[in-house]
Amino acid sequence: MKLITAIIRPEQLAAVKEALFKVGVTGLTLTRVSGHGGEREVIEQYRGRQVRLEFHEKVQLSIAVSDPFVEVTIDAILSSARTGGVGDGKIFVQPLERVIRIRTGEADNDAL
Amino acid sequence: MKLITAIIRPEQLAAVKEALFKVGVTGLTLTRVSGHGGEREVIEQYRGRQVRLEFHEKVQLSIAVSDPFVEVTIDAILSSARTGGVGDGKIFVQPLERVIRIRTGEADNDAL
Amino acid sequence: MKLITAIIRPEQLAAVKEALFKVGVTGLTLTRVSGHGGEREVIEQYRGRQVRLEFHEKVQLSIAVSDPFVEVTIDAILSSARTGGVGDGKIFVQPLERVIRIRTGEADNDAL
Ligand SMILES: Nc1ncnc2c1ncn2[C@@H]1O[C@H](COP(=O)(O)OP(=O)(O)OP(=O)(O)O)[C@@H](O)[C@H]1O
Ligand SMILES: Nc1ncnc2c1ncn2[C@@H]1O[C@H](COP(=O)(O)OP(=O)(O)OP(=O)(O)O)[C@@H](O)[C@H]1O
Ligand SMILES: Nc1ncnc2c1ncn2[C@@H]1O[C@H](COP(=O)(O)OP(=O)(O)OP(=O)(O)O)[C@@H](O)[C@H]1O
Ligand SMILES: [Mg+2]
Ligand SMILES: [Mg+2]
Ligand SMILES: [Mg+2]
Repeated sequence: MKLITAIIRPEQLAAVKEALFKVGVTGLTLTRVSGHGGEREVIEQYRGRQVRLEFHEKVQLSIAVSDPFVEVTIDAILSSARTGGVGDGKIFVQPLERVIRIRTGEADNDAL
Repeated sequence: MKLITAIIRPEQLAAVKEALFKVGVTGLTLTRVSGHGGEREVIEQYRGRQVRLEFHEKVQLSIAVSDPFVEVTIDAILSSARTGGVGDGKIFVQPLERVIRIRTGEADNDAL
Repeated sequence: MKLITAIIRPEQLAAVKEALFKVGVTGLTLTRVSGHGGEREVIEQYRGRQVRLEFHEKVQLSIAVSDPFVEVTIDAILSSARTGGVGDGKIFVQPLERVIRIRTGEADNDAL
C-alpha cells in the first residue's frame, strides 16, 4: 500500500476528482495548503536586492491506495492536473504500512 | 517509531482526545480537512446519470509514537471514534525515521 | 529522498523561510494546524481535578528533499525555529519513494 500525496492548483480540483473517480479511486482526503515551488521572485529595493518566498494557494490530495492502483492513480492525476504552466504541482509517493477502517476494524487492502 | 494518521468525524474529536490522553498520548497535531470515503452519490439528471464525489468535513489527527505505543494508540482511536455509521474514518500507519524536539535537539524516542 | 515535516510557531515562520531559502531549499508546502505537545494543563474544578488537552495554533512545513539536503534542511529549521521556550516544535523525517513534477513528468531527484 502507498500514500500518494498530490499538491495541485485549486482550479484543477474538479478535473482531478473526476479523473480519479473514473479510474475507481474514491477514497481521498483534501487539505487547503499554500506552497512554494522553486521559482525565485526577485524584489528590487532601494539598496541591494531581496529575494522572497511568495506562497500560492494549493490543494493537497492524500490518497491511500493498494499497490495495483498506484500507477493508475498517478496517471489520472498527471493527465487532469497538468496545464503546462509552471506551478502545476507535485506528486509524492510514500510507504503505507497499515490501514484500518474505523467502523468495521477491517485492515489493509480490505480497508481500501 | 511510527506516524499514525487518523481521519475522524469532527463530532468525535473530544472523545478521541480524551481516550488518547487516558493512555498517555499527549503529543498530536490536528488539521481540518475534507474527504470522501468510498460512498457513491448518484445524482439523477435530465439526460443520463452523473456520479458525484461529495466531500465531508473531517478532522485529521497526526500522532508520532514510539513502537510500544502503536497498538494502544490505535485501540484508543478505534474505541472513541467509532459510532457504527458509514464515514467513521480511517487510520493510517507510516514509518517514521527520525524525530527531533526543536527546543532541545533531543532525538527519536527521547523526543517523543 | 526524504519528506521532512516541521511543526513550528507561527511567529517563527518568516525566520524559518529565510533560513531555508539561504541554504537553497525553496520547494515547500505550508499547512495551518493546531497541536498539543506533551504539556499537561490542569484545571481545578469544584469536585476533583480535570486534565485538559489545550491546542495551540502552529504552522506545519512539509519539505521533500534529496538525501544530501536532509541535514542542511534540519539545521536551518533548528536554528531559525528555536526560541528556547517550551512549544518550539518538532521535526519528523519520513521515507519518500517517488516524486513527480506534474508539468514535465520529471521524476525523483530531477523533480526536486
Ligand atoms: N520540494 C517540495 N517539498 C514540498 N512541497 C513542494 C515541493 N516542491 C513543490 N511543492 C509544493 O507543490 C506546489 C507546486 O509546486 P510547483 O508545481 O511550482 O513545483 P516545481 O518543482 O517548481 O515545478 P514547476 O517548474 O512546474 O513550477 C508548491 O506550491 C508546493 O506546495
Ligand atoms: N483511501 C483513502 N485515502 C485517503 N483518505 C481516505 C481514504 N479513505 C477514506 N479516507 C478519509 O477518511 C474519511 C472517512 O472515510 P470513511 O470512513 O467514509 O471510509 P470508508 O472506507 O468509506 O468507510 P465506511 O464504509 O465506514 O464509510 C474520508 O472522508 C477521507 O477523508
Ligand atoms: N508526538 C507528536 N505527534 C504529532 N505532533 C506532535 C507531537 N509532539 C508535538 N507535536 C506537534 O508539535 C507542536 C509543538 O510541540 P512541542 O514543541 O510542544 O513539543 P514538545 O515535545 O512538548 O517539546 P517542548 O518540551 O519543547 O514543549 C505541537 O503543538 C504538535 O502540533
Ligand atoms: Mg514552480
Ligand atoms: Mg465511507
Ligand atoms: Mg510542549
